[in-house]
Amino acid sequence: MSYVKNPMDIENKSFEIIEKEMKNHNYSIDELKIIKRVIHTTADFEYEELIEMSDNFIEVGKRILKNKPTIYTDTNMALSGINKIALRKLEAEAICYVNLEEVHKEAKEKNITRSMAAVEKAVKDNVDIFVFGNAPTALFKLKELIKEKKVSPKLIVAVPVGFVGASESKENMKDLNIPYITVRGRKGGSTVAASIINALMYMCVER
Amino acid sequence: MSYVKNPMDIENKSFEIIEKEMKNHNYSIDELKIIKRVIHTTADFEYEELIEMSDNFIEVGKRILKNKPTIYTDTNMALSGINKIALRKLEAEAICYVNLEEVHKEAKEKNITRSMAAVEKAVKDNVDIFVFGNAPTALFKLKELIKEKKVSPKLIVAVPVGFVGASESKENMKDLNIPYITVRGRKGGSTVAASIINALMYMCVER
Repeated sequence: MSYVKNPMDIENKSFEIIEKEMKNHNYSIDELKIIKRVIHTTADFEYEELIEMSDNFIEVGKRILKNKPTIYTDTNMALSGINKIALRKLEAEAICYVNLEEVHKEAKEKNITRSMAAVEKAVKDNVDIFVFGNAPTALFKLKELIKEKKVSPKLIVAVPVGFVGASESKENMKDLNIPYITVRGRKGGSTVAASIINALMYMCVER
Repeated sequence: MSYVKNPMDIENKSFEIIEKEMKNHNYSIDELKIIKRVIHTTADFEYEELIEMSDNFIEVGKRILKNKPTIYTDTNMALSGINKIALRKLEAEAICYVNLEEVHKEAKEKNITRSMAAVEKAVKDNVDIFVFGNAPTALFKLKELIKEKKVSPKLIVAVPVGFVGASESKENMKDLNIPYITVRGRKGGSTVAASIINALMYMCVER
């Protein structure tokens, strides 16, 4: 059987197709790299219009990634989608706390979600980048802590998916005054979150 | 701040919303459980019309899951999305081979993708269920091996996402005469793949 078997050929060809099918837009070259990778990951062109990022998101994101950051993800699935080779080249670290014993215990004691307890721990540990693809409660909690001036993360990828709280959790990201990217409305997810971090990393390292 | 913090409450409420917003359909109660969970995972109602499954997919799927199966996934991301508590209750095992040293070596020697080499190993290991959320080449390879009568898997979740080969890899699933579920066209992905397996598992175990 004949089919394209080289992963980089497949990816390049895919990005060509995506670019061809996208509508007219005002995105910069770097912004396009992120949006195309999200579409590549979902085959969903709606993201072209749903993604919103702060003007400084990419510039700051690249600078942080080049500075050996710790990246916190709300799920192990998002963590597992982040490219390990690029991470290693950047000497960056990606972590997720939701399955830690101490987080389970804390969540039970406080009657909060594990995602929330895990964010509290990540805040204490002073991580650089927060990545949310799944848990609105985690994003709500981080926003609370930012407003209480208990933390000031360097970058937020705010793309929880879902029907209860997801959309609300992503509102008014601008008011935080922290470089961010988000997806308006219900869409998003772990694959979207991971693809955004990957797109940023691929701007910083040779592949 | 007030927001719903109980994970099962969030999930139940989400499924209510999804059911309310779905169109008229002929799905059975069990089929609906799968489709709603895929929509829950993507916030994308297109899946309502894109999912196609063989008549025996759910019945056979439940029977196999109750029989301590090995589930092979094409990516670690899909693997990481499969619910570990349900797996444990079912005494089922989920595995992915793409990162194995021997698979890397085999892929390089044969000039094929790691996904393809990994499927060849999974076939040798006689896994029960194949789950593809990402790699068209893995699904193409499995279909080749089935046609050559080198393997006859018990169940296939065939939902690779993408622009090059994904759609083609999912065509004519019916002709294999193996219980399957697929997503027509480009859409799909690791989260979709994992949510289908989770939906099936939740039909078999108490949560």
